[in-house]
Amino acid sequence: MAPGAPARCPWSRLLSAGGAGGLRGRTGPASPVGAEPPSLPPALRPSLPRLLFLSALPSEARCSRSSPSAAAPPGPGCCRHTTPAAAADCCLAPMEDYHKPDQQTLQALKDTANRLRISSIKATTAAGSGHPTSCCSAAEIMSVLFFHTMKYKVQDPRNASNDRFVLSKGHAAPILYSVWAEAGFLQETDLLNLRKIDSVLEGHPVPRQAFTDVATGSLGQGLGAACGMAYTGKFFDRASYRVYCLLGDGELSEGSVWEAMAFAGFYKLDNLVAIFDVNRLGQSDPAPLQHHVEIYQKRCEAFGWHAIIVDGHSVEELCKAFGQAKHQPTAIIAKTFKGKGISGVEDKESWHGKPLPKNMAEQVILEIDEKIQNKKKLSPALPEEDAPVVNIRNIKMPSPPSYKVGEKWATRKAYGVALAKLGHANDRVIALDGDTKNSTFSELFKKDHPSRYIECYIAEQNMVSIAVGCATRDRTVAFASTFATFFTRAFDQIRMAAISESNINLCGSHCGVSIGEDGPSQMGLEDLSMFRAVPNATVFYPGDAVATEKAVEIAANTKGICFIRTSRPENPVIYNNNEDFHIGQAKVVLKSKDDQVTVIGAGVTLHEALSAAEQLRKEKIFIRVIDPFTIKPLDKKTILENARATKGRIITVEDHYHEGGIGEAVCAAVVGEPGITVNRLAVSHVPRSGKSAELLKMFGIDKDAIVQAVKVAVSKSRNAE
Amino acid sequence: MAPGAPARCPWSRLLSAGGAGGLRGRTGPASPVGAEPPSLPPALRPSLPRLLFLSALPSEARCSRSSPSAAAPPGPGCCRHTTPAAAADCCLAPMEDYHKPDQQTLQALKDTANRLRISSIKATTAAGSGHPTSCCSAAEIMSVLFFHTMKYKVQDPRNASNDRFVLSKGHAAPILYSVWAEAGFLQETDLLNLRKIDSVLEGHPVPRQAFTDVATGSLGQGLGAACGMAYTGKFFDRASYRVYCLLGDGELSEGSVWEAMAFAGFYKLDNLVAIFDVNRLGQSDPAPLQHHVEIYQKRCEAFGWHAIIVDGHSVEELCKAFGQAKHQPTAIIAKTFKGKGISGVEDKESWHGKPLPKNMAEQVILEIDEKIQNKKKLSPALPEEDAPVVNIRNIKMPSPPSYKVGEKWATRKAYGVALAKLGHANDRVIALDGDTKNSTFSELFKKDHPSRYIECYIAEQNMVSIAVGCATRDRTVAFASTFATFFTRAFDQIRMAAISESNINLCGSHCGVSIGEDGPSQMGLEDLSMFRAVPNATVFYPGDAVATEKAVEIAANTKGICFIRTSRPENPVIYNNNEDFHIGQAKVVLKSKDDQVTVIGAGVTLHEALSAAEQLRKEKIFIRVIDPFTIKPLDKKTILENARATKGRIITVEDHYHEGGIGEAVCAAVVGEPGITVNRLAVSHVPRSGKSAELLKMFGIDKDAIVQAVKVAVSKSRNAE
Repeated sequence: MAPGAPARCPWSRLLSAGGAGGLRGRTGPASPVGAEPPSLPPALRPSLPRLLFLSALPSEARCSRSSPSAAAPPGPGCCRHTTPAAAADCCLAPMEDYHKPDQQTLQALKDTANRLRISSIKATTAAGSGHPTSCCSAAEIMSVLFFHTMKYKVQDPRNASNDRFVLSKGHAAPILYSVWAEAGFLQETDLLNLRKIDSVLEGHPVPRQAFTDVATGSLGQGLGAACGMAYTGKFFDRASYRVYCLLGDGELSEGSVWEAMAFAGFYKLDNLVAIFDVNRLGQSDPAPLQHHVEIYQKRCEAFGWHAIIVDGHSVEELCKAFGQAKHQPTAIIAKTFKGKGISGVEDKESWHGKPLPKNMAEQVILEIDEKIQNKKKLSPALPEEDAPVVNIRNIKMPSPPSYKVGEKWATRKAYGVALAKLGHANDRVIALDGDTKNSTFSELFKKDHPSRYIECYIAEQNMVSIAVGCATRDRTVAFASTFATFFTRAFDQIRMAAISESNINLCGSHCGVSIGEDGPSQMGLEDLSMFRAVPNATVFYPGDAVATEKAVEIAANTKGICFIRTSRPENPVIYNNNEDFHIGQAKVVLKSKDDQVTVIGAGVTLHEALSAAEQLRKEKIFIRVIDPFTIKPLDKKTILENARATKGRIITVEDHYHEGGIGEAVCAAVVGEPGITVNRLAVSHVPRSGKSAELLKMFGIDKDAIVQAVKVAVSKSRNAE
Repeated sequence: MAPGAPARCPWSRLLSAGGAGGLRGRTGPASPVGAEPPSLPPALRPSLPRLLFLSALPSEARCSRSSPSAAAPPGPGCCRHTTPAAAADCCLAPMEDYHKPDQQTLQALKDTANRLRISSIKATTAAGSGHPTSCCSAAEIMSVLFFHTMKYKVQDPRNASNDRFVLSKGHAAPILYSVWAEAGFLQETDLLNLRKIDSVLEGHPVPRQAFTDVATGSLGQGLGAACGMAYTGKFFDRASYRVYCLLGDGELSEGSVWEAMAFAGFYKLDNLVAIFDVNRLGQSDPAPLQHHVEIYQKRCEAFGWHAIIVDGHSVEELCKAFGQAKHQPTAIIAKTFKGKGISGVEDKESWHGKPLPKNMAEQVILEIDEKIQNKKKLSPALPEEDAPVVNIRNIKMPSPPSYKVGEKWATRKAYGVALAKLGHANDRVIALDGDTKNSTFSELFKKDHPSRYIECYIAEQNMVSIAVGCATRDRTVAFASTFATFFTRAFDQIRMAAISESNINLCGSHCGVSIGEDGPSQMGLEDLSMFRAVPNATVFYPGDAVATEKAVEIAANTKGICFIRTSRPENPVIYNNNEDFHIGQAKVVLKSKDDQVTVIGAGVTLHEALSAAEQLRKEKIFIRVIDPFTIKPLDKKTILENARATKGRIITVEDHYHEGGIGEAVCAAVVGEPGITVNRLAVSHVPRSGKSAELLKMFGIDKDAIVQAVKVAVSKSRNAE
């Protein structure tokens, strides 16, 4: 045990023997995988005498800060339970005389906090920008977390068994960097390169830093990722690592935080600790709740968390609070002051995001330095190395697709079939959905692999963040699905996932007007545009069930964000089961030497194009039909070659708005090529309810519209000739 | 007073005399505009004897359902206050013997509920799709709301003084349509055209229905819009209309709901009532909290709401609950059953979104019909017509811009200057921001017009929804601002705003890598792509301060979503103050007869292009420079004309990712035009921290990159010659 690490309370000793997720040092049998709420190990529950438990509790077991509330389970201050199960729902680590580190350790933690302040001030002053005041409010929190509470290997920040830390208030990055310098992973001098173009120490955390799992800086996203990590630790890894997430009070206005709070409360993520750095001041104004920490507490409790109010500048109170283990997630609501320790700046408005001028910084550093009593550095405790070795590389489908050409399948259903199949190939494949699993068909995965399905309910932002968290450190291969258009809800999370270099896979069903009667609110008509604008993303738009299965398999093995666009209508299978698919390789689906136009369709419009070809053939007009398979990257070469073979004429047809879709992607690929023309058929305005076929016709993307466009193209050139 | 309308409790009579926002029939002086929390009218507070108040309260004044909680103000069940102010914070409408409508009215409301059930079943069965079970859980709620509680003119659904209703659970649209048929605005036969391509009765509510202010169907968005309406009613219109929003329990997992809850609680929107239809069942599973209505209550209370649990199928309890007026928003947590009234379906899973088969529907309709005792229809009460007449047309700046050519201004600052100015032209111009007002410069508007600025804190989804709500029925011209990239957080809200035919204006600052050190999380690099994909949107990208001022003025008078993209760096003013700007009209900023290439830049890259031109001129290479002003619509004509005059050569340069940006828009505009080539300079991967100029260089969109690209273009053609 590291110096200053908390001893265990009698409860925790008894409980830890059997594997309560919220407690460390679990050596007993792992709990079964699945989303079952945690409980005392069955072996303990019936047999242990009640009085033995009760007598082991010090009589003063009481948290003086937290008031009992009707909204939460018993909570601290009420350790008079008559059953172990009830006690397990209460504070396991009695206060006062228990976790209290010795005075020397406490002083060392205070000294560390002040060193972190100094480093943060130095770094931001050297950079000429950054957020020293947001760092200073969190100095004691970071000191206690990294040098007392958390267990990790300093020189191996991504070790699978390390405790995780997510800095949701990403603008406090300098104090995170200061921590890693204090711990010895970074050089002190590195800090002075903060925000420079050749330094890894960017303005906000990014994963090119080995100690950063997810990029932050768009506020309110860290906790969702932390939930994903905690869910993975508890249910997939079944390991003892814990997850800590530091949030600012300003970002608590983001709904995504409360999606994550609800998620963690629902799944009783007792290995998760959120710390609210309530420093009162936002960027341009005080945060709405100012220092009303009791309101935050009530909100946390109402969302199923154990919530403890502490003086965020008291290392002792922080040590106590972090020492508590509960069968639910814990929120440490730390009342702090922005700019704490900086004379004249502390708790003052108008200092957000402003570095101290050089002279001022020097004076302030002297003042803070005077408070430091000992220069000796603390070392963090090492983790228990109980995270399993996992391998998520080269995941291959156990068998080829087994569809019959001509059979009608919706690609959304083929997605579910494929994902369930992939789940048999690797037990680290997981699926997530937002209460649409019977529409996206991720329910087929759940049926085969119930313990690896995460129901995220109707909270798409959080679903994406959970997926990102689950996929960190290559612990899982995550596939999250909902209606394509509802991923717009999570665009900021998807954008940040790309900055996080995440490898999540997203499947959006119900694209386009072809969904029919439900109307425009349910139609994905901007999803291609959105995902194309995500750096390094791969955008699959499979044309049939076979292509869908291949897309799923390829996505599982592809770096970066993968998006698979699926459709609601059933269309015939057109590919043989042994057809080979590759990213960026289009398929020429229909071809003859007499082709006069190249038509590029995808999903439902690929089938409309094939129907159009059939009709045109009767009139002796032949067209070439291309299925791009991936919209990003786009197979420029195949498109150009075939366009040239069809007198330069291209018609694109897509169930999507014009902007940012297939047509624009094709235009950008072929512009400037001599003799190439592109006519784009796409949805031009907000659609409406109606039958699928009626809407394809109304918006000019059906067979008839293609026939018409082909005829115009052919006759135009004829006239020109 | 309409038949069955609640009488007032003694408290409410006393309080209503002076204009407490939560009470109807206000005839006294309006309260001052601004976000001050409502309180008892000052005249009442000090002078009225306490005992008079107390004696007026019936001794049994008690709500039997709500339990007192530490999280909320006193709440029902505690009407023993010793000051009027304290009483005003408590239930004003004592229960039991007070609001109880007579038996005849109660029966009529039950009969109405059952007729709504029948209509909803008939409509969905006729359509062959839709959500009868989600309608049936809300039948009593809708009956009481529309035929007992709300005040509105049936034949004038958009009357400014009407109470507002937002169906956040948009999939229950058939019961909304049934209500308007019951009220006489629609024909009963219209209902049988539900979801047909030629009917206005779409699958989800849309504003082509006169009784629908905002489209719903993407869950969790209705309450934010309702908050905007309530804020407008309370602080801008200062009228007595109230706002009701019906939510499903499934959508309560959406964080956007809790952003709205926090907003309403913070601004004490006492004219707002949210009804949670807790029917337990989501689409694919039970909602996470199932029937734990007490947890919803705690959440509501923790977010500053008065929360009342009712049996959602008891018209009497609903009448009581709606009769309560509080100095805070009210949540009616209605425990209901999905499919209530449908034998064999009620409270059963797997019936989400499924119409009853015809035979079954006929049988069920017979059963429900038997419960109806009286066919007489109820009429809603009329509103007090106290909403002011407003005019938001043809808003002109009070004076022309007053910049000097060559002066350096950031367009983000020019936005603030312009908006503040516009605020003097029309008192219905309002501004919203998400705690970035000192970055976007909306603070300049706040300074001039504090009562018309809405601080939305860090909750961009809700900010957009609030703006949409404020802008309904043409009550305000709303401008909402944040960093451009943080609008990705609200993409779904923006998408739905377009379907809602909203006229909101959004300004995104801090676009592109040119923001510098803060790094990629803060850089808007996909915003053009996002907003271009919004139907009917206008996308402004002003090149200097003058253009920005013009953009703001034009946006205020333009239908549809307007987006204004502003930049952080300061650049010289290039336009004269009398320069005329129009949507879809580009400016040729630099032109000579010897121009060899047309360079299209915008924002910071327009200035890089001008610098490049200066450098190239020294080498006797001349370029034409175009500022598109609006990216959507794009001025294809000007671009083509000038490209043709410069040997067909176009170079686009933008501080944005390639996909969906200016380059692709230009490609789509010019593709197929003989002899035109487009070289696109844009950001090609996730950027990083660094100085603005360093990043423009690193990502190849600075002056040097343009010079280089121009030289390549010129030499290529020379070689070709």
